[in-house]
Amino acid sequence: MSPIEFFFDFSSPYACIASLQIEALAARHGRTVQFKPILLGPVFKAVGGAPLTEIPAKRDYALRDFARSARHAGVPLRMPEPFPRPTVNTARATLWLQDTQHPAATAFIHAAFRALFVDNRDINDPATLVELATPLGIDPQALLAAVQDPAIKDRLKNTVEAALQRGVFGAPFMFVDGEPFWGNDRLPQLEHWLAQGGF
Amino acid sequence: MSPIEFFFDFSSPYACIASLQIEALAARHGRTVQFKPILLGPVFKAVGGAPLTEIPAKRDYALRDFARSARHAGVPLRMPEPFPRPTVNTARATLWLQDTQHPAATAFIHAAFRALFVDNRDINDPATLVELATPLGIDPQALLAAVQDPAIKDRLKNTVEAALQRGVFGAPFMFVDGEPFWGNDRLPQLEHWLAQGGF
Repeated sequence: MSPIEFFFDFSSPYACIASLQIEALAARHGRTVQFKPILLGPVFKAVGGAPLTEIPAKRDYALRDFARSARHAGVPLRMPEPFPRPTVNTARATLWLQDTQHPAATAFIHAAFRALFVDNRDINDPATLVELATPLGIDPQALLAAVQDPAIKDRLKNTVEAALQRGVFGAPFMFVDGEPFWGNDRLPQLEHWLAQGGF
Repeated sequence: MSPIEFFFDFSSPYACIASLQIEALAARHGRTVQFKPILLGPVFKAVGGAPLTEIPAKRDYALRDFARSARHAGVPLRMPEPFPRPTVNTARATLWLQDTQHPAATAFIHAAFRALFVDNRDINDPATLVELATPLGIDPQALLAAVQDPAIKDRLKNTVEAALQRGVFGAPFMFVDGEPFWGNDRLPQLEHWLAQGGF
C-alpha cells in the first residue's frame, strides 16, 4: 500500500504535533509515512497566506491553540522565541539525508522538531544541525556541505514547487492515496479514511 | 453551569455541521447552548479574512473538505449554488425570536440551516423565512416586520461588534467558560475541555 505523504515545514507547530502522531497512526493501518520537508514562506507567497501569529486578530488564539492542541494530543510543545524561525537549512539537511537513504533521516526530523519546539534551539544554525546529527551517526562534514550544495538547494525549491502543483497551501498537508488532508486537526478524518478505505 | 456560546453565520458550512452536533455534545456534560448569529462579512472586513471558497488556492480543497467533514460527522450537507449567500435577514429573524423568547427560536435556526445546506433555498428571502417559520408557530407578519425593524438591525450590528471585541474572527466560534474554540474541527477539544474541566 502506498505511504502517507506528509508535507511539513519545521517551523509549523501544528506540523510538529502531527509529526509525533502520524507514524503510529499509519502503522495502525499497515502504512508508512513519507516525510516531505517544504518551506511555508514561498508557499504563502504563492497562494497569499501568512503565519497565523502574524495576523493580529488570530495571534492570541493561535498561541493558545498551539499549546492546547499539543496537550490534547498528549505531546510536548513549548513555543520558541522568536517565532516563526527560518528552517531552510533544516529542510535541506533532511532532503539530503532522504536522498542518500540515510537510516537516521526520520530520526533527524524528530530530533530537529524537538530541538525547536521543546528546547528552543535555532535549528537553522549549521552548528545546531551538526549537534543534532552527530549522535545519529550522520557525518557532520557531509551535512555542512549538503546544506550549501546548489543541487540540494534546487532540490528544495523543486519540492516546494511540486507541492504547490499538488495543491498544498499549508502544513501539515497530507495525502492518502491522492486524498488531501490539511492540518493536524484532520488526523481523525485521515484515520477514518484509512480504516474505511474512504468514506 | 454557564451555557456554551456558539457564534455562527448561517452561510458557513462548518457552522452548519457543528450546529447539528453541539447540543448533544453540551447535553452530555450538563450544558446548554446559546446560539449567537453573526455575519462573517463584517467580521472578515474587520480582521482581514475571506471565505475559503474565494481564495483560489483553497477553493477546491475547501469544497472537498466541507463534504467530507459532514460525512465524517454523519450529518447531511449539500453545497448550495451560488455560494456564499447573504444571510442577514436570517440572522435578524433569529435575534428577534431569541429576544422575544420565542420557544421555536432554536428550531428556526436548524430549519434555516437545513433549508440552505440541504434544500438549496434562498434563506435571505423573506418569503422563504415565512415558509420556514409558519410551521413552527411563528407569526409571519411579525417576522416580516422584525427583519426590517431598525432596532433589530442595530441589534445584529451590536452582536457582531461584541463578537469582534471577544476575539471572534471566524465561524463557528465557541466559548466554554471563557475558553475560545474556533471551528467545527475543535469540537473534540471542546468536549475534552468539558469532560475534564479544562486540560
